[in-house]
Amino acid sequence: MNTEALFSALDRQRIETPSWGYGNSGTRFKTFAAPGAARDVYEKIEDAAEVHRLSGIAPSVALHIPWDAVSDYGELRAFAESRGVTLGAINPNVFQDDRYRLGSVTHPDPAVREQALAHLLACVEILRQTGSRDLSLWFADGTNYAGQDDLRARKRRLRDALARVHDALPDGARLLLEYKLFEPAFYATDAFDWGAALAHCVAVGERAQVLVDLGHHAPGVNIEQIVAFLLDEGRLGGFHFNARRYADDDLIVGTANPFELFCIYAELVSAETAADPLVRDTARAVAYMIDQSHNIEPKVEAMLQSVLNCQEAYAKALLIDRERLEEAQQAGDVLEAHRTLTDAFRTDVRPLLAEWRRARGLPEDPIRAHRVSGYAERVARERGVAAASGGFPVHS
Amino acid sequence: MNTEALFSALDRQRIETPSWGYGNSGTRFKTFAAPGAARDVYEKIEDAAEVHRLSGIAPSVALHIPWDAVSDYGELRAFAESRGVTLGAINPNVFQDDRYRLGSVTHPDPAVREQALAHLLACVEILRQTGSRDLSLWFADGTNYAGQDDLRARKRRLRDALARVHDALPDGARLLLEYKLFEPAFYATDAFDWGAALAHCVAVGERAQVLVDLGHHAPGVNIEQIVAFLLDEGRLGGFHFNARRYADDDLIVGTANPFELFCIYAELVSAETAADPLVRDTARAVAYMIDQSHNIEPKVEAMLQSVLNCQEAYAKALLIDRERLEEAQQAGDVLEAHRTLTDAFRTDVRPLLAEWRRARGLPEDPIRAHRVSGYAERVARERGVAAASGGFPVHS
Amino acid sequence: MNTEALFSALDRQRIETPSWGYGNSGTRFKTFAAPGAARDVYEKIEDAAEVHRLSGIAPSVALHIPWDAVSDYGELRAFAESRGVTLGAINPNVFQDDRYRLGSVTHPDPAVREQALAHLLACVEILRQTGSRDLSLWFADGTNYAGQDDLRARKRRLRDALARVHDALPDGARLLLEYKLFEPAFYATDAFDWGAALAHCVAVGERAQVLVDLGHHAPGVNIEQIVAFLLDEGRLGGFHFNARRYADDDLIVGTANPFELFCIYAELVSAETAADPLVRDTARAVAYMIDQSHNIEPKVEAMLQSVLNCQEAYAKALLIDRERLEEAQQAGDVLEAHRTLTDAFRTDVRPLLAEWRRARGLPEDPIRAHRVSGYAERVARERGVAAASGGFPVHS
Amino acid sequence: MNTEALFSALDRQRIETPSWGYGNSGTRFKTFAAPGAARDVYEKIEDAAEVHRLSGIAPSVALHIPWDAVSDYGELRAFAESRGVTLGAINPNVFQDDRYRLGSVTHPDPAVREQALAHLLACVEILRQTGSRDLSLWFADGTNYAGQDDLRARKRRLRDALARVHDALPDGARLLLEYKLFEPAFYATDAFDWGAALAHCVAVGERAQVLVDLGHHAPGVNIEQIVAFLLDEGRLGGFHFNARRYADDDLIVGTANPFELFCIYAELVSAETAADPLVRDTARAVAYMIDQSHNIEPKVEAMLQSVLNCQEAYAKALLIDRERLEEAQQAGDVLEAHRTLTDAFRTDVRPLLAEWRRARGLPEDPIRAHRVSGYAERVARERGVAAASGGFPVHS
Repeated sequence: MNTEALFSALDRQRIETPSWGYGNSGTRFKTFAAPGAARDVYEKIEDAAEVHRLSGIAPSVALHIPWDAVSDYGELRAFAESRGVTLGAINPNVFQDDRYRLGSVTHPDPAVREQALAHLLACVEILRQTGSRDLSLWFADGTNYAGQDDLRARKRRLRDALARVHDALPDGARLLLEYKLFEPAFYATDAFDWGAALAHCVAVGERAQVLVDLGHHAPGVNIEQIVAFLLDEGRLGGFHFNARRYADDDLIVGTANPFELFCIYAELVSAETAADPLVRDTARAVAYMIDQSHNIEPKVEAMLQSVLNCQEAYAKALLIDRERLEEAQQAGDVLEAHRTLTDAFRTDVRPLLAEWRRARGLPEDPIRAHRVSGYAERVARERGVAAASGGFPVHS
Repeated sequence: MNTEALFSALDRQRIETPSWGYGNSGTRFKTFAAPGAARDVYEKIEDAAEVHRLSGIAPSVALHIPWDAVSDYGELRAFAESRGVTLGAINPNVFQDDRYRLGSVTHPDPAVREQALAHLLACVEILRQTGSRDLSLWFADGTNYAGQDDLRARKRRLRDALARVHDALPDGARLLLEYKLFEPAFYATDAFDWGAALAHCVAVGERAQVLVDLGHHAPGVNIEQIVAFLLDEGRLGGFHFNARRYADDDLIVGTANPFELFCIYAELVSAETAADPLVRDTARAVAYMIDQSHNIEPKVEAMLQSVLNCQEAYAKALLIDRERLEEAQQAGDVLEAHRTLTDAFRTDVRPLLAEWRRARGLPEDPIRAHRVSGYAERVARERGVAAASGGFPVHS
Repeated sequence: MNTEALFSALDRQRIETPSWGYGNSGTRFKTFAAPGAARDVYEKIEDAAEVHRLSGIAPSVALHIPWDAVSDYGELRAFAESRGVTLGAINPNVFQDDRYRLGSVTHPDPAVREQALAHLLACVEILRQTGSRDLSLWFADGTNYAGQDDLRARKRRLRDALARVHDALPDGARLLLEYKLFEPAFYATDAFDWGAALAHCVAVGERAQVLVDLGHHAPGVNIEQIVAFLLDEGRLGGFHFNARRYADDDLIVGTANPFELFCIYAELVSAETAADPLVRDTARAVAYMIDQSHNIEPKVEAMLQSVLNCQEAYAKALLIDRERLEEAQQAGDVLEAHRTLTDAFRTDVRPLLAEWRRARGLPEDPIRAHRVSGYAERVARERGVAAASGGFPVHS
Repeated sequence: MNTEALFSALDRQRIETPSWGYGNSGTRFKTFAAPGAARDVYEKIEDAAEVHRLSGIAPSVALHIPWDAVSDYGELRAFAESRGVTLGAINPNVFQDDRYRLGSVTHPDPAVREQALAHLLACVEILRQTGSRDLSLWFADGTNYAGQDDLRARKRRLRDALARVHDALPDGARLLLEYKLFEPAFYATDAFDWGAALAHCVAVGERAQVLVDLGHHAPGVNIEQIVAFLLDEGRLGGFHFNARRYADDDLIVGTANPFELFCIYAELVSAETAADPLVRDTARAVAYMIDQSHNIEPKVEAMLQSVLNCQEAYAKALLIDRERLEEAQQAGDVLEAHRTLTDAFRTDVRPLLAEWRRARGLPEDPIRAHRVSGYAERVARERGVAAASGGFPVHS
C-alpha cells in the first residue's frame, strides 16, 4: 500500500469515545476521585473534544442515559458541534435502578420488564433527537445461582424485548447487542456470548447487529475469529474497545496484548475490501467505540492513548502485504504466511503516523502536546475533585 | 414425581457408548497398553454389549470410520444385534490422513477438501447400511498461527462441505456438528464454538444440529445455558459426554464436577415437558453419547461407571420439584429456588436406582457385578496386551 | 466413623462469619440496598449471633477496620459476648484511602507505605484489645499496566511490611496472608498466588501463615492440592470461603461446585489425623471464615446457608472410608479409590445433620426456622433500607 | 544503551535448542511425518548446528534420555563439537515406560519409584560424561481423579526423589525442576506450579532451581511476575520457551503474544544489572532453552524462527530506557512508565539485528539464508520421511 492510499485510509478512521470514560470510575472496592474528572455531560463533551482536537480521529462521543440525560437534546447536540464533535451511540442503562436487582428485560416480574422496555424505547426517542445511528444495548441481566430462574424463559424474555426495540427504531438506525460472559451476573448472563447475540439479532431483524467488547470473553477465546465470522454473516455492528488479561478489566485498549488488537484490525481491513458486498458493507459500517474504566490513570490522557493505540494497530494492519499473504496461505506455507502478518506488526509506524499528523495539521506527538497544553491542570483547577463514592462498604 | 413415573422415565434413558472407548488410547506423551483392550470392532461391540448387559441403558455403540471399517456393514449390524446392541452414530475421521496436516474440508487445497468430502459422503453411505440415524462430525481443522490461513475463507469452505453432506443424508438422518475451542489446532479452530456450529447448522438445513461435547469449552463457560439455548432453538442434536477440569481432558463423565452434569440434565428434563413442541421434540430426540479417553483406567469398568454416572444425574434431575421451583423463581426468591434445585442434587438416588435395577432384572450394583464376573480377566487372557504406540489410535 | 465420633467432630466445627457480610454490598455496577441490612458493627454482630443461634457452629465474627472501628473494643467484645458470639479475626483495610491509588505497603512513595504500615500496626493493637488470634491481611496492591512499577521492588516492599507486622504480633497471634490472582489490580497483584504468599510467610517468621480464599485462583487451579501442600508445610492458616465460577464472584460457598468444597474438606479431615504432628496441629488450628458479597440475596439467610453448606461438606468428608480409600490407593485401583471418595459425597447427610441438631437443641431445619422466626422482617422494619451507594457513575 | 553495549549484550545471548524439536512430533490425534525430520541424535545435532550456523546464538543442544541415549557420550560430545555445537541440558524421561501409568517418582508402588530414581541417577551419570551443567526434570506424575491417590503422600515422595537426585549431582551441576498445571494428568499434577517447585527446591538444596515453561500456566497467570519473583529469590534456573494460547500448545515462542515474551525479557535484563548480587548472578546463569512441538511446520525453519524471536525480544528489552522508566515509576506516572516500556517494544529492531549479524559474519536474514541454502531439501532427500505413528516420539 502506498503512502497516499495509507494516509487516505487513516483519514477515514473513526474512534468514538464514551462520555463515561471522562468521569470518575472505579472497581467495587474503591473509586479514586481524579482531579478534574468531568462532572456532567458538558464537561465530558469538552474532554472528548480535546481528545479529538489532538488525535483528529475521535469526532464523536457516546452517551449514557440517564447519566447524560438532558432536557433538550437539540441543545446538547449544538453544544457538541460547537466543540467540534458529534453525539454518537446512545447507551441505555437498565442495571442501576433498585428494581433491576434480578434483571431488567429478563426479570421474572413483567412489571419490571415493562419498566426496562419503556426506558429502552425512551432511548430510541433520544436517538431520534440526537441524530445518532446506533442504540447500543448491554444488559447486566443474569442469575447468580443455578436454579435461580428459568434459563429458557429468560432467553425468550430477552428476545421479546429486543424485537420490540428493533421495531421501534427509526429508519437507518441500528440496534447493537453487546454480550458478556459474566459480571455482574456470576452464574448465567442472559446475553452471554457472541453466538447468543447473533441468534437474537438474526431473529429480531435486519437492523440488529452484534457488538463485540474485547473484555467480555472467556480465557483463550479467539476474538479476531469471532470478528471474522460476524463480518462474514453481515452482523458485526461495532466494538467496545478495551484491554483485559483476566476478566472485564476495562484497561486502555492495546495495553495487555497489542498483537491481539492488530489481529482484530487485520480482519477488519481484509473485510473492507472483500469480494462479497455484504462483508464489505458490514465492515465499513462498523462502529468503533472505546469502553474503558480509567481508575488510576488521568482520564483525558488515558483516552487519548487509547485512540492512538487503535490508530497504530490500524496502520499496521493496513501495511500487511495482502498479495504475499494470500500466496503463502494458498501454498500452505505456514511460516511464511505467519511472517507476512507479523512483518506488518513488527513495523514501527510511529514515524509514518507523525508524518500523517503533520500533513493534517495535528500535533506530531499528541500525548506530549496534551501534557504541555495545561489542559489537565486547568480542568483540575476549574472542576476540582468531584466526590467519588463507590467501593463497599463506604469508608467514612 | 412418583416412583412409577420416575421408573418409566429411567426406562427411556439411553446412553450410547463409543467403540473407540474400548481400545487403547492415550495422551500425546504415551499410550499405556491396557490388558484386554479391544483390538477390533467386534471386540469393541462385545465390550459395549457387556456394559449394556450390566446397566440396561447403553443399547447402542457409535462407530468410527475408518477405525471400525468393515467390508460388510449388514454383517456387522447382525453381529451387534446378536450381542444385544445396535450400531449407533457414524463418526467419520478426517484428521489422520497425512494430507490433512493443514485441514480437511477447510484445507487451502481444493483437492484435499474433495478427498475429505468424499470420505464424509462415504460415511453417509455407511450410515445408510448400518441403519444409523446420526452422522456425527468433528473436524480437527484449524490453524496454529495467526495469518496461517484466511479465517473467512475457511469458514466458507466448512459451510460448503456441511451443505453438501447435509443434502446427501437419507430421510430421517441427521448431521450433528461438534465444535471445539482448541486442540489439535492452537490458534483458531474452524468449528470453534456452539455459536459457530449453530450458525452453520441453520444455514445448511433442517437436519443439521449441534453436538455438545462437555470438554470443548473455554474455562467458566456455562454449558447448561448453551444446552438450554440450543434446545429452545430446536438445534440441540446430541452430546459427547466426558469430564474436564482443564482442557479436553476426556475423563469419565461426572467425575470432575457432578453438579454441572446434574444442571445439564436439569435443562434436558425441563425441556422434555416444555410447552413449545419444538423444544419438547428436540429434547426427546437428543443423542446421548459418551466420548472419553480412558488412559489409565480399565476400559469396560470406566465405561460402565460413565453410564451409571449419567443415570444418577438424570435420576436426580427427575426429582426436582418443578412446581416449587417455578413458584420460587416467579417470586424472585433466589435462595429458595436454588435450594429447590440442590435439594434434588443432594438426594442420594442410589437406593432408588438399585430398586429400579432389581425390578428390571439387572444387577443392583453393576460395578460389583462386573468386577466379580471375571469379564476383565477373561478378555485380558483372550486378547492379551495389544501393542500400543504413543498417542491416540494409530492410523494405519 | 461411628455416629458418636461423627457428632463429636461436628461439635468441633467452627465457621466464622464476617461483619461485612451483613451490610450492603455490590458489584462495581450497583449496590442494591437490602431492607434490614446491618448499618453498624452492633447490628452486624446481632446478625452474626442470629446465624450462630440457628446453626450452632458460627460462634465468632470477623471485624474489618475501619468499617467496624469503635472507640472501646473492650465494650464491643462485651457486647458480642452478651449476644453469644466472640470477636474473631481482625481485617485491616489498606485499599480505600485516596492515597492508596497506586498501592499501600508496596506504593512507590515511602510516605504512603508508612501510612499503610501504621494502620496495620494499629490493627495489631486492636487485635490485642479484642483478644483475637488472627490478623487477616489482604492487599489490593498491584499494577494495571506492564512497566507501571518495578515488580521486584514491590515484592521487597511487601516483604518488609509483613516482617514488621509479624514482629509486632503479641504472643499466640498469627498473621494470615491472603493472596489473589487479580482485582482490583489487572496486570500484576503483589501477593498474587499461594506460592508467593508461602515464600513471604516462610521469610518473615513462624507466625505467618497463608490464607486461602476460594475465589482467588486462576481457572482450573486445584485448590484442594494447594490446601494439602500448605498443610504439609505447616503453613495453612485459614480460609475465606465463598464460591466462584468466573472470577472473585464471592457467592455463597458450595453453590458453584459442591464437589470442590467436599474435596477441600477431605484434605482437611485427612490432615487432622495425620501421622506428622506438624500437619495435624496445623490442620486443627485452621481458621474457617466466610468471605462473601451477598448482592442479591437476603443477608442473614445467605450467611446461614453458607455455614450450613460448610457443615454438609465437612460431614461428608468425615464419612469417607479412609481404610478402604488407602487400600485402593496403595493398590493403584484408580476407580475404586475415586468411588470410595465419591461414595461419601453421594451420601445424603441431611438426616444425620438434623439428628445432630436435635441432639444439640438446635432447630432441625435452620433455614426454615429463620424464615418463620420473623427476624428478617423485624430488622427490615427496625433498620429500614440503608442508603447504598456504589456503582459508578452514581445514578442520581 | 549505545550500539556497542547493545551488540555486546547480543553477543552474550544463548538459546539452547532441544534435540527432540528436530524429530517428528504431534498431538494425541496424529503425528504428521515431516520430510527430512531427524531420525537419530546425530541428525538432530546436525540440525541444531544448522540453526546455530545461521543464527550465531544457539550453540548447544539439549538431550533427552533415552531418546538420545548412546553407548559413548564422549564420542557424542566430540561429534557435536565437530559440528560447532555442544551438548546441553540432560532431560530424563520418566513418563513413557509402561510401569509409569500411575506415576514415576510419586507412584504408590516403591518399586516403580526406585526404577524412576535409578533412571534419574543414570542421567546424572550421563550429565557427568557430557559435561552438561543442568539436569532438567519434568515429571508427568499426577492423578486423573479425586481420591485416586493421596496428595500429601505424593508430595513427600516427590521431595524425597528430588533430594536424592540433588545430592548425587557433581560439583557445579544444577537440578532444574519444571512445573506444569496439567497434562497428561488431569486432576492433580504433582509438580503443579512454580510455588510448589520453589518450595521443593528450597527444601532439597542450593543447587535446585525452578524451570519455567511458558506453556505450563493457568489462563491469565502473569509469567513475568513469576520470573521476577524467582529471580529475586535466587531460584530461577531456566526456561523452556514456547508459545501458547490455550494449554501447553508448544508453538513457536513469541508467536501467540510477542508482548508477553518481551515483558519476560524485560525482567531478565533488569535483573542482570540488579544491585543485589544474588539476583544478578541468578539472572546471568539462567538457561534459555526452547521446548516446542513442531507438528505442522518445517522443523529447522521453525527452530530458527524461535531463536530469532528470542533475539528480537531480548534486543527490544535491552532498548528500554531504564532511567526514564524508573523516574516515571517513582513519580507514580502510570502512563509514562508504561509508555517507556512499550516504546522499546514498538521499536523495529530488525535493521539493528541485521547490522549485528553483518558485523558477526552471519547472514543478515537467516530465514532467507536457510530457505535458499537447500538444507531442507537435502535432508529430505537424504533422510526421507521417517515413519511417524500417532502421538509424541514413540518409546521403543
